[in-house]
Amino acid sequence: MVTGIHHVGIAVADLDESIELYRNALGAELLHRARSDKDGIEAAFLRTGAGEVELMSATTVDSPVGKFLARRGPGLHHVAYGVSDIAKALDDARSAGLELIDAAPRLGMHGAMIAFVHPKGMGGVLTELVQT
Amino acid sequence: MVTGIHHVGIAVADLDESIELYRNALGAELLHRARSDKDGIEAAFLRTGAGEVELMSATTVDSPVGKFLARRGPGLHHVAYGVSDIAKALDDARSAGLELIDAAPRLGMHGAMIAFVHPKGMGGVLTELVQT
Repeated sequence: MVTGIHHVGIAVADLDESIELYRNALGAELLHRARSDKDGIEAAFLRTGAGEVELMSATTVDSPVGKFLARRGPGLHHVAYGVSDIAKALDDARSAGLELIDAAPRLGMHGAMIAFVHPKGMGGVLTELVQT
Repeated sequence: MVTGIHHVGIAVADLDESIELYRNALGAELLHRARSDKDGIEAAFLRTGAGEVELMSATTVDSPVGKFLARRGPGLHHVAYGVSDIAKALDDARSAGLELIDAAPRLGMHGAMIAFVHPKGMGGVLTELVQT
Protein backbone atom coordinates (compact mmCIF):
# COMPACT_ATOMS: atom_id res chain seq x y z
CA MET A 1 0.00 0.00 0.00
CA VAL A 2 1.22 3.48 -0.87
CA THR A 3 2.24 5.57 2.15
CA GLY A 4 2.50 8.89 0.33
CA ILE A 5 4.27 10.92 -2.33
CA HIS A 6 7.93 10.27 -1.52
CA HIS A 7 9.36 12.75 -4.02
CA VAL A 8 8.96 14.36 -7.41
CA GLY A 9 11.86 14.10 -9.86
CA ILE A 10 12.68 17.22 -11.87
CA ALA A 11 15.12 17.34 -14.78
CA VAL A 12 17.20 20.53 -14.64
CA ALA A 13 19.74 22.20 -16.89
CA ASP A 14 22.00 23.47 -14.07
CA LEU A 15 22.05 21.66 -10.74
CA ASP A 16 23.65 24.40 -8.62
CA GLU A 17 21.29 27.09 -9.92
CA SER A 18 18.28 24.84 -9.37
CA ILE A 19 19.28 24.04 -5.78
CA GLU A 20 19.49 27.78 -5.08
CA LEU A 21 16.10 28.33 -6.73
CA TYR A 22 14.37 25.72 -4.55
CA ARG A 23 16.08 27.08 -1.45
CA ASN A 24 15.06 30.67 -2.18
CA ALA A 25 11.61 30.14 -3.65
CA LEU A 26 10.32 27.34 -1.41
CA GLY A 27 12.65 27.30 1.59
CA ALA A 28 13.74 23.77 0.66
CA GLU A 29 16.64 22.20 2.54
CA LEU A 30 19.43 20.38 0.68
CA LEU A 31 19.73 16.85 2.10
CA HIS A 32 22.45 15.37 -0.08
CA ARG A 33 23.95 15.20 -3.54
CA ALA A 34 24.93 12.09 -5.44
CA ARG A 35 26.48 11.28 -8.78
CA SER A 36 26.18 8.10 -10.82
CA ASP A 37 28.53 7.89 -13.78
CA LYS A 38 26.85 4.64 -14.82
CA ASP A 39 23.49 6.42 -15.17
CA GLY A 40 25.01 9.72 -16.39
CA ILE A 41 23.22 11.66 -13.67
CA GLU A 42 24.05 14.06 -10.87
CA ALA A 43 21.18 14.56 -8.44
CA ALA A 44 20.34 16.64 -5.39
CA PHE A 45 17.68 15.70 -2.85
CA LEU A 46 15.90 18.53 -1.07
CA ARG A 47 13.38 18.39 1.74
CA THR A 48 10.19 20.37 1.14
CA GLY A 49 8.29 19.67 4.33
CA ALA A 50 6.75 16.18 4.19
CA GLY A 51 8.04 15.40 0.69
CA GLU A 52 11.29 15.61 -1.23
CA VAL A 53 12.32 17.10 -4.54
CA GLU A 54 14.97 15.27 -6.57
CA LEU A 55 16.71 17.66 -8.94
CA MET A 56 18.48 15.73 -11.70
CA SER A 57 21.06 16.95 -14.16
CA ALA A 58 22.70 14.96 -16.94
CA THR A 59 26.46 14.34 -16.96
CA THR A 60 26.31 12.99 -20.53
CA VAL A 61 23.96 13.92 -23.37
CA ASP A 62 23.13 10.27 -24.17
CA SER A 63 22.05 9.40 -20.59
CA PRO A 64 18.30 8.98 -19.90
CA VAL A 65 18.09 12.44 -18.29
CA GLY A 66 20.22 13.93 -21.07
CA LYS A 67 17.84 12.55 -23.69
CA PHE A 68 14.81 13.77 -21.70
CA LEU A 69 16.30 17.29 -21.54
CA ALA A 70 17.06 17.26 -25.27
CA ARG A 71 13.55 16.05 -26.15
CA ARG A 72 11.35 18.00 -23.72
CA GLY A 73 13.56 20.53 -21.94
CA PRO A 74 13.77 20.96 -18.16
CA GLY A 75 10.67 20.02 -16.17
CA LEU A 76 8.80 17.33 -14.28
CA HIS A 77 10.39 13.92 -14.92
CA HIS A 78 8.80 11.38 -12.54
CA VAL A 79 6.78 10.93 -9.37
CA ALA A 80 7.79 8.51 -6.62
CA TYR A 81 5.44 6.93 -4.11
CA GLY A 82 6.57 5.54 -0.79
CA VAL A 83 5.50 1.95 -0.14
CA SER A 84 5.86 -0.11 3.01
CA ASP A 85 6.62 -3.35 1.11
CA ILE A 86 8.19 -2.81 -2.31
CA ALA A 87 8.17 -6.51 -3.29
CA LYS A 88 4.41 -6.64 -2.69
CA ALA A 89 3.88 -3.27 -4.42
CA LEU A 90 5.70 -4.58 -7.51
CA ASP A 91 3.56 -7.73 -7.45
CA ASP A 92 0.43 -5.57 -7.21
CA ALA A 93 1.60 -3.39 -10.12
CA ARG A 94 2.33 -6.51 -12.20
CA SER A 95 -1.09 -7.95 -11.33
CA ALA A 96 -2.70 -4.66 -12.41
CA GLY A 97 -1.18 -5.28 -15.86
CA LEU A 98 1.52 -2.61 -15.66
CA GLU A 99 4.82 -2.89 -17.49
CA LEU A 100 7.75 -2.72 -15.07
CA ILE A 101 11.09 -1.14 -15.90
CA ASP A 102 12.62 -2.86 -12.87
CA ALA A 103 11.36 -6.43 -12.48
CA ALA A 104 12.94 -6.53 -9.01
CA PRO A 105 13.77 -3.78 -6.49
CA ARG A 106 17.25 -2.21 -6.76
CA LEU A 107 19.27 0.19 -4.65
CA GLY A 108 18.51 3.85 -5.52
CA MET A 109 20.77 6.89 -5.27
CA HIS A 110 19.22 7.93 -1.96
CA GLY A 111 20.06 4.58 -0.36
CA ALA A 112 16.55 3.07 -0.44
CA MET A 113 15.25 0.17 -2.51
CA ILE A 114 13.41 1.44 -5.58
CA ALA A 115 11.71 0.23 -8.75
CA PHE A 116 10.38 2.09 -11.78
CA VAL A 117 7.06 1.41 -13.50
CA HIS A 118 6.95 2.20 -17.24
CA PRO A 119 5.03 5.38 -18.13
CA LYS A 120 3.14 3.53 -20.90
CA GLY A 121 0.76 1.85 -18.46
CA MET A 122 0.59 4.86 -16.13
CA GLY A 123 -0.91 7.39 -18.54
CA GLY A 124 2.45 8.81 -19.58
CA VAL A 125 3.77 9.23 -16.03
CA LEU A 126 7.13 7.66 -15.20
CA THR A 127 6.34 6.24 -11.75
CA GLU A 128 8.81 5.13 -9.09
CA LEU A 129 8.17 3.05 -5.99
CA VAL A 130 10.40 3.64 -2.95
CA GLN A 131 10.62 1.35 0.06
CA THR A 132 10.15 3.54 3.15
CA MET B 1 7.33 27.86 4.58
CA VAL B 2 6.47 24.76 2.58
CA THR B 3 4.82 22.01 4.65
CA GLY B 4 5.10 19.27 2.01
CA ILE B 5 4.07 18.05 -1.42
CA HIS B 6 0.32 18.56 -1.36
CA HIS B 7 -0.41 16.86 -4.67
CA VAL B 8 0.83 16.17 -8.17
CA GLY B 9 -1.40 17.13 -11.08
CA ILE B 10 -1.62 14.65 -13.95
CA ALA B 11 -3.30 15.36 -17.30
CA VAL B 12 -5.26 12.31 -18.48
CA ALA B 13 -7.13 11.34 -21.62
CA ASP B 14 -9.95 9.47 -19.83
CA LEU B 15 -10.85 10.37 -16.26
CA ASP B 16 -12.82 7.23 -15.35
CA GLU B 17 -10.14 4.88 -16.70
CA SER B 18 -7.42 6.82 -14.89
CA ILE B 19 -9.26 6.70 -11.56
CA GLU B 20 -9.51 2.93 -11.90
CA LEU B 21 -5.81 2.71 -12.79
CA TYR B 22 -4.73 4.61 -9.67
CA ARG B 23 -7.09 2.56 -7.52
CA ASN B 24 -5.81 -0.75 -8.88
CA ALA B 25 -2.12 0.04 -9.30
CA LEU B 26 -1.50 2.14 -6.18
CA GLY B 27 -4.47 1.48 -3.91
CA ALA B 28 -5.42 5.18 -4.15
CA GLU B 29 -8.73 6.28 -2.66
CA LEU B 30 -11.06 8.60 -4.59
CA LEU B 31 -11.80 11.66 -2.44
CA HIS B 32 -13.97 13.74 -4.74
CA ARG B 33 -14.60 14.82 -8.31
CA ALA B 34 -15.20 18.35 -9.51
CA ARG B 35 -15.94 20.04 -12.82
CA SER B 36 -15.26 23.63 -13.86
CA ASP B 37 -16.85 24.64 -17.13
CA LYS B 38 -15.08 28.01 -16.87
CA ASP B 39 -11.68 26.28 -16.87
CA GLY B 40 -12.76 23.45 -19.21
CA ILE B 41 -11.63 20.82 -16.72
CA GLU B 42 -13.00 17.80 -14.91
CA ALA B 43 -10.78 16.60 -12.07
CA ALA B 44 -10.62 13.80 -9.54
CA PHE B 45 -8.68 13.97 -6.31
CA LEU B 46 -7.28 10.73 -4.93
CA ARG B 47 -5.50 10.07 -1.68
CA THR B 48 -2.20 8.20 -1.98
CA GLY B 49 -1.13 8.02 1.64
CA ALA B 50 0.31 11.38 2.75
CA GLY B 51 -0.16 13.09 -0.63
CA GLU B 52 -2.86 13.46 -3.24
CA VAL B 53 -3.02 12.89 -6.97
CA GLU B 54 -5.16 15.25 -9.04
CA LEU B 55 -6.23 13.60 -12.28
CA MET B 56 -7.34 16.23 -14.80
CA SER B 57 -9.23 15.75 -18.03
CA ALA B 58 -10.22 18.45 -20.51
CA THR B 59 -13.89 19.18 -21.25
CA THR B 60 -12.93 21.40 -24.23
CA VAL B 61 -9.94 21.16 -26.57
CA ASP B 62 -9.06 24.84 -26.17
CA SER B 63 -8.88 24.73 -22.35
CA PRO B 64 -5.43 24.85 -20.71
CA VAL B 65 -5.50 21.08 -20.03
CA GLY B 66 -6.87 20.42 -23.54
CA LYS B 67 -3.98 22.35 -25.06
CA PHE B 68 -1.48 20.57 -22.80
CA LEU B 69 -2.84 17.17 -23.89
CA ALA B 70 -2.70 18.17 -27.57
CA ARG B 71 0.88 19.46 -27.24
CA ARG B 72 2.50 16.88 -24.95
CA GLY B 73 0.01 14.08 -24.45
CA PRO B 74 -1.06 12.68 -21.08
CA GLY B 75 1.44 12.99 -18.23
CA LEU B 76 2.73 15.05 -15.33
CA HIS B 77 1.22 18.55 -15.42
CA HIS B 78 2.11 20.35 -12.16
CA VAL B 79 3.31 19.91 -8.60
CA ALA B 80 1.59 21.58 -5.65
CA TYR B 81 3.25 22.39 -2.34
CA GLY B 82 1.31 22.92 0.86
CA VAL B 83 2.08 26.18 2.65
CA SER B 84 0.92 27.38 6.04
CA ASP B 85 0.52 31.02 4.90
CA ILE B 86 -0.18 31.41 1.18
CA ALA B 87 -0.05 35.24 1.22
CA LYS B 88 3.46 35.11 2.70
CA ALA B 89 4.48 32.28 0.37
CA LEU B 90 3.41 34.38 -2.64
CA ASP B 91 5.37 37.35 -1.28
CA ASP B 92 8.43 35.10 -0.86
CA ALA B 93 8.05 33.79 -4.41
CA ARG B 94 7.75 37.34 -5.74
CA SER B 95 10.82 38.41 -3.74
CA ALA B 96 12.75 35.45 -5.22
CA GLY B 97 12.06 36.98 -8.64
CA LEU B 98 9.48 34.44 -9.79
CA GLU B 99 6.71 35.28 -12.22
CA LEU B 100 3.29 34.60 -10.68
CA ILE B 101 0.29 33.38 -12.67
CA ASP B 102 -1.97 34.31 -9.75
CA ALA B 103 -0.94 37.62 -8.16
CA ALA B 104 -3.30 36.87 -5.26
CA PRO B 105 -4.64 33.60 -3.81
CA ARG B 106 -7.89 32.26 -5.29
CA LEU B 107 -10.28 29.45 -4.40
CA GLY B 108 -9.23 26.15 -5.98
CA MET B 109 -11.39 23.21 -7.04
CA HIS B 110 -10.63 21.30 -3.84
CA GLY B 111 -11.93 24.15 -1.67
CA ALA B 112 -8.55 25.52 -0.54
CA MET B 113 -6.89 28.82 -1.43
CA ILE B 114 -4.33 28.31 -4.21
CA ALA B 115 -1.98 30.25 -6.46
CA PHE B 116 0.11 29.17 -9.45
CA VAL B 117 3.72 30.18 -10.11
CA HIS B 118 4.74 30.38 -13.79
CA PRO B 119 6.92 27.47 -14.99
CA LYS B 120 9.34 29.91 -16.66
CA GLY B 121 11.03 30.86 -13.38
CA MET B 122 10.73 27.32 -11.93
CA GLY B 123 12.85 25.46 -14.49
CA GLY B 124 9.87 24.45 -16.62
CA VAL B 125 7.77 23.16 -13.71
CA LEU B 126 4.25 24.57 -13.32
CA THR B 127 4.15 25.04 -9.54
CA GLU B 128 1.09 25.51 -7.35
CA LEU B 129 0.91 26.70 -3.74
CA VAL B 130 -1.97 25.43 -1.59
CA GLN B 131 -2.96 26.88 1.77
CA THR B 132 -3.15 23.95 4.21
